[in-house]
Amino acid sequence: MWRLLVLLPLLTSFTPVEVPNGIKLPYEVEGETKVFHLIAEPVQWEIGPNLILNCWGYNGIVPGPLIEAEEGDHVRILVTNKLPEPTTVHWHGLILPSGMDGVTGLNQPPIPSGETFQYEFTLKQSGTYMYHSHYDEMVQIGMGMHGFFIIHPKEPIVEVDRDYAIMLSMFSVAPGTANPDPISNDFNYFTYNGTVWPTTESLIAREGEKIRIRFGNLSMDSHPIHIHGHEFTVVAKGARRLNPSAQYDVVTVDVPTGNTRDIEMIAAYPGDWAMHCHKSHHVMNGMIHELTNLIDVKIPEATIKKLQELIPGFMPMGIHGMGQMYDHHHHPLPPNTVPFGSPGPFGIIEMSGMFSVIKIRRQGESFEGWYKNPEGTVASPVSRSEE
Amino acid sequence: MWRLLVLLPLLTSFTPVEVPNGIKLPYEVEGETKVFHLIAEPVQWEIGPNLILNCWGYNGIVPGPLIEAEEGDHVRILVTNKLPEPTTVHWHGLILPSGMDGVTGLNQPPIPSGETFQYEFTLKQSGTYMYHSHYDEMVQIGMGMHGFFIIHPKEPIVEVDRDYAIMLSMFSVAPGTANPDPISNDFNYFTYNGTVWPTTESLIAREGEKIRIRFGNLSMDSHPIHIHGHEFTVVAKGARRLNPSAQYDVVTVDVPTGNTRDIEMIAAYPGDWAMHCHKSHHVMNGMIHELTNLIDVKIPEATIKKLQELIPGFMPMGIHGMGQMYDHHHHPLPPNTVPFGSPGPFGIIEMSGMFSVIKIRRQGESFEGWYKNPEGTVASPVSRSEE
Amino acid sequence: MWRLLVLLPLLTSFTPVEVPNGIKLPYEVEGETKVFHLIAEPVQWEIGPNLILNCWGYNGIVPGPLIEAEEGDHVRILVTNKLPEPTTVHWHGLILPSGMDGVTGLNQPPIPSGETFQYEFTLKQSGTYMYHSHYDEMVQIGMGMHGFFIIHPKEPIVEVDRDYAIMLSMFSVAPGTANPDPISNDFNYFTYNGTVWPTTESLIAREGEKIRIRFGNLSMDSHPIHIHGHEFTVVAKGARRLNPSAQYDVVTVDVPTGNTRDIEMIAAYPGDWAMHCHKSHHVMNGMIHELTNLIDVKIPEATIKKLQELIPGFMPMGIHGMGQMYDHHHHPLPPNTVPFGSPGPFGIIEMSGMFSVIKIRRQGESFEGWYKNPEGTVASPVSRSEE
Repeated sequence: MWRLLVLLPLLTSFTPVEVPNGIKLPYEVEGETKVFHLIAEPVQWEIGPNLILNCWGYNGIVPGPLIEAEEGDHVRILVTNKLPEPTTVHWHGLILPSGMDGVTGLNQPPIPSGETFQYEFTLKQSGTYMYHSHYDEMVQIGMGMHGFFIIHPKEPIVEVDRDYAIMLSMFSVAPGTANPDPISNDFNYFTYNGTVWPTTESLIAREGEKIRIRFGNLSMDSHPIHIHGHEFTVVAKGARRLNPSAQYDVVTVDVPTGNTRDIEMIAAYPGDWAMHCHKSHHVMNGMIHELTNLIDVKIPEATIKKLQELIPGFMPMGIHGMGQMYDHHHHPLPPNTVPFGSPGPFGIIEMSGMFSVIKIRRQGESFEGWYKNPEGTVASPVSRSEE
Repeated sequence: MWRLLVLLPLLTSFTPVEVPNGIKLPYEVEGETKVFHLIAEPVQWEIGPNLILNCWGYNGIVPGPLIEAEEGDHVRILVTNKLPEPTTVHWHGLILPSGMDGVTGLNQPPIPSGETFQYEFTLKQSGTYMYHSHYDEMVQIGMGMHGFFIIHPKEPIVEVDRDYAIMLSMFSVAPGTANPDPISNDFNYFTYNGTVWPTTESLIAREGEKIRIRFGNLSMDSHPIHIHGHEFTVVAKGARRLNPSAQYDVVTVDVPTGNTRDIEMIAAYPGDWAMHCHKSHHVMNGMIHELTNLIDVKIPEATIKKLQELIPGFMPMGIHGMGQMYDHHHHPLPPNTVPFGSPGPFGIIEMSGMFSVIKIRRQGESFEGWYKNPEGTVASPVSRSEE
Repeated sequence: MWRLLVLLPLLTSFTPVEVPNGIKLPYEVEGETKVFHLIAEPVQWEIGPNLILNCWGYNGIVPGPLIEAEEGDHVRILVTNKLPEPTTVHWHGLILPSGMDGVTGLNQPPIPSGETFQYEFTLKQSGTYMYHSHYDEMVQIGMGMHGFFIIHPKEPIVEVDRDYAIMLSMFSVAPGTANPDPISNDFNYFTYNGTVWPTTESLIAREGEKIRIRFGNLSMDSHPIHIHGHEFTVVAKGARRLNPSAQYDVVTVDVPTGNTRDIEMIAAYPGDWAMHCHKSHHVMNGMIHELTNLIDVKIPEATIKKLQELIPGFMPMGIHGMGQMYDHHHHPLPPNTVPFGSPGPFGIIEMSGMFSVIKIRRQGESFEGWYKNPEGTVASPVSRSEE
């Protein structure tokens, strides 16, 4: 059979989606059919600097690769199971035959370890959809088995200059361990496309460009994503595009579980703009919730000295707040943990987890490095006389 | 006084609401008034196979019976308190006199144990509303004291072929106990109309019918309900119907606490379609969150053998994932627990909690049993040569 | 330089915002610039009767004072840091130069203890925005460092008679302690403008008046705010006002983290109307989640007597429900705790936390005291013969 391996979309009528830190699933064309091949498998996944987790994902990545297609496409998707237990795949939000819907026991038998099943259907919709395991769902989704399934409309409804996709995932990892624990409800790693800042790649845009960002969420919590310095428009909520009359402007979009949200905005203002989940625990790494707030607690010098004899380098953390911890990001850390904070243009950016930056630059300016603020536009110390 | 006991609506201008696993509160007509009688009382409630909880509900059921009425109705509702402590009832979302609003201490005195109070007002609205206790609210709502209050418009706004109501509730039940614990924030039973799958009844529809589903939520968490294989429209958010300009299509509707959501869809595609909360812990039963993920942990054969001597039938669970647990649903279980998983057409459906099925059948096809998939429309193994 | 201290808005084209339990940040006019001065500092804050917490706030209050301005204003905001660690301020939702956006390390260096920085920008928007710390965010926001930034449109879009602002905040305070613990995810104090009911001030309105309420949320959870006895309209979701086509009516508005919601309603019905978060744990004070539900558990009289010898006044709580606890609100309590429940017109209102009352009165009626219900409009006991 004649087969054409298509790795990059050519001659498309749409702006291809970019997946920071991610990949797209390649496909082959067989006659009128696009053939994809998903491989469910254990993945050693580096979610942050030196923090490698024993995840389950697809095709070597967590979350799985983006499946990108066009309305009207006829697709065949082979799913090979390289996990130690069965699996299936559900195509979340897609209109398809009941037997292709992927719920184990209800729509199909499980795919045993070592075997390959095929799914086949025609794409009748356009929008931002997802795929994920539907066998042992809590464990398999929680360990990373989920990804985007994005379908471009046959005729573009709204043209954008850049089109990004970001999956929001959470992991619960006990300190010093590497197995994410999907049974726990105490999550401590919060990721964009499976990575914590500063491993997460920045988004970029030219001043004046129209950008779309598609967020997906299959985690146990909602994630309110705040973009700094811009108002933006919510244009889709997981199914077809919202009618213009129902679209609305926000500065923070809440993405509930099992949902996607498409937002569009004009990259109107040059700068480095934070984009993060606004739940403050979700921009931390490796939180342990049982700690006590020691702010303003007096610890005698003698006690500190005694502890320093036992634990070289010991310092009583947090008695003036936690901010001092960010400055120690260069200190040796226990194995399989990541630091709080990373270097920025004005010292340590003390954010991690679900945090990234949208770099908006004027025509001709480089995307390398940080934004160069025009003179007099940075918050600055007041001289005593002015105060 | 002449009284007419009306148990089933006759000659209505609307499609009566169906409550899977539930009942409707009967009423009597006294002159121009519909008279309902709610009885607040302890209820031994079977939420799943052999799992009986010591709940508090109304008229022998958890959640309480549906109160169904019409815009313009004048209603009198007697509330008899058979609980060991006081109670009151709040009519959530209704426009009524301040003294009928039910907040203990603010709008009325509590109803003592053994006494009956009456509420009386005229229904000025139409839509999906609720009622619930407003005394010792956390305990009484948490133990089951809540239900739907649905008011049909005087003149039907949109006709539907079927109209369903599903209340979303959570319970926290320590293993081996029967008292739901409303103080805990670690919930482990997640119910549609007070039941976990497979005790939960399926919804049914003929191909092409228009169906409405009304979801209500008075629990401590939001529940994103995903319906498989269809896009559907959100038409109301707890008050009057949304203007068509503000309605929107989704594949998952997030139902926040204290809210209702009405959705409408064409049952366009025959099949057995899952409908479930997409928080993965909410489709489990009896979760204990403190377990550790043992995937890929090597347990020596000698250790397993030694444990099997002490605990007949012992097997190390979860070292290849949790899926293996679903296959043991026929094993003897500890008292007052329910199995994971239940038999489906393709093996075990390993979902429970807030899970149900919408059965869509062609004209003339039976709703009994599972969907018969047309030849070649079920995901299936690939022969080696094809791979 | 000539300076005019403006403490109260005079001759405004808008209805000034009222902040129950709160204050507004005064400003001075220097030429074309409004100059505000925020002081970040530790605050001994009384969130409820005798419950004083060691918070961090601004200008002596938690949450910080309302910054109220007009579209087109040029503002300069001095921020003095009187905390034991650095800080910065982020102007949440505002369009401004990248260097004024406040993210430590990314947009500016931290403001060291004891120093003053200045921010300066022109207000290009109108709506309900916020400000909060963006250094050691989890700790600083969690300890109280957040507030409203409300910008009135140059020309009023919709006139209202009253305009309220309510910030929704949560604190985790271990029993007997005074330090809110921002690391914990087990919150037990839930506040409107930093106070629990009945310390929280009521809202007032005349029958027929149009009122707006602006809710803000920077806490770790969403808060579904239910207003009794009225339907109301959601008119803004954190950015510019929604188009009328996208506005919608509800009886409970869910306010997600990092978001604001503006609602408008006609105060159509005289009465005392509850307005509260509908998560039932959020209308409690000082919850401890590890307690066990003792309902219907039989405790032998001898055991109770023995315990009463050891603990004078001991009584076994909760065996008939928790409601009995509200009646003991006048008993001596441990230090730094607040009672459940407070006196109302019909006995104890057994609600606290995120709870308040909207008092709607006819022209000429006093706002003092409770609503006087017209004869026959209060839920009341049924005589045996009627039953």
